[in-house]
Amino acid sequence: MNEVIRLLTNHRSFRQYTGQAVEPEKLKTIIEAAQAAPSWVNGQQVSIIAVRSEERKQQLSVLSGNQKHVAEAPVFLVFCMDFHRAKLAAELEDQPFEAAGDVDALLVGAADVGIALSNAVAAAESLGLGIIPIGGVRRHTAEVIELLQLPEYVFPVAGLCIGYPAEELPKKPRLPMEAVYHEEVYNQDQKGLIEAYNKTHRESLKAQGLTERDWSSTIARFYALNPQYGDAGRTLPQQGFTCDNLNKE
Amino acid sequence: MNEVIRLLTNHRSFRQYTGQAVEPEKLKTIIEAAQAAPSWVNGQQVSIIAVRSEERKQQLSVLSGNQKHVAEAPVFLVFCMDFHRAKLAAELEDQPFEAAGDVDALLVGAADVGIALSNAVAAAESLGLGIIPIGGVRRHTAEVIELLQLPEYVFPVAGLCIGYPAEELPKKPRLPMEAVYHEEVYNQDQKGLIEAYNKTHRESLKAQGLTERDWSSTIARFYALNPQYGDAGRTLPQQGFTCDNLNKE
Repeated sequence: MNEVIRLLTNHRSFRQYTGQAVEPEKLKTIIEAAQAAPSWVNGQQVSIIAVRSEERKQQLSVLSGNQKHVAEAPVFLVFCMDFHRAKLAAELEDQPFEAAGDVDALLVGAADVGIALSNAVAAAESLGLGIIPIGGVRRHTAEVIELLQLPEYVFPVAGLCIGYPAEELPKKPRLPMEAVYHEEVYNQDQKGLIEAYNKTHRESLKAQGLTERDWSSTIARFYALNPQYGDAGRTLPQQGFTCDNLNKE
Repeated sequence: MNEVIRLLTNHRSFRQYTGQAVEPEKLKTIIEAAQAAPSWVNGQQVSIIAVRSEERKQQLSVLSGNQKHVAEAPVFLVFCMDFHRAKLAAELEDQPFEAAGDVDALLVGAADVGIALSNAVAAAESLGLGIIPIGGVRRHTAEVIELLQLPEYVFPVAGLCIGYPAEELPKKPRLPMEAVYHEEVYNQDQKGLIEAYNKTHRESLKAQGLTERDWSSTIARFYALNPQYGDAGRTLPQQGFTCDNLNKE
């Protein structure tokens, strides 16, 4: 197993950090790694806002659903999908720009964010840092957009806490590969695999002294409680992601 | 610079492959790396379909906009956003499931795909393989969904060609960091940075003996020609991604 595989397969998400600051040169390396990732048509539809201000981190912590690690991490990166530069390119070239109104733009932007974020995660971990991605930045996006002064065609997709980890954590087990990986065509028959995973999931929690819980219970309850997670339905169109071609028949 | 950073910052996308097959154990390692990536609420909203059948690769090659490397790569992975398991979990737990109808599900699913795909890319590259992500799987999704037998709540976001590279390629330069990276708040003033990048972009193409072209010209023309990229506006709702809360006022 090479060093890259060892790192990728050893990922854990840390919520507790020492007081040690993240060195500026390490942060720069993390951003370079994020930028080096592939993107849709090399459009680089991602922007990253680094937040270090205690006050702004505190606000983002509350807006993300009172996740205190957002305030406590020395650096909080907000990864945004970004078609602002595509719009500027259109202006420079005197071309029309309507692509942000395509529902496909959401898939492009969020996937580009995921690709870049994942590189940032691996880079940070390789430098001895611990991270946790924060989807909570999508809970109150109207406020996040205002706080970070995001212009039209820019939308926050995920945050990333970065710091030196101050806890030991076991790796979380994942679904059996057969549930996620398919050959040639999709195999829908996954209930037995989920039940097998429930067992692994409970055992992993028990080994940590935590309340045993099925994965299916955790996920089912989360989505039952959050049939709509945040305010994106209102703020995406306001930012220019109007999904004009979405057929709601 | 450690091995992980070196790999991540050295990414290139390869379109030409030798005839050598991708070893099954290497593919398994790639999937393990993808699965180890973080995901929204540990929901693991991603499925990966490996296509090796020549006939099916050929069909996907045509559907992706006649990208012949899709047919020529020994393995083509299709990364799908996947709430099928969340639905099964809801059934197992006797809970309602409406979250796929939230427009936020598109951001969650596509970001999870991006995060997993990026891990797969790094893993593959660390094993000496070359890759190129293929957003073209979203051009004719109705046919892709049928071909891969994707059920409700599953949608193709990106493909990934994998094989042993049969070409030498330079690294593509990226936008200046100042365009993509912001401190505390977003800086909209990026036209000068785009113009600086246009120069780097032209020089890189020239060094390869290719037609010199501004990045802004390439991007502006792509989006002008593709104000709507594919058929997602029709197929997302058919797959259950109804975006019920999207305010189209």
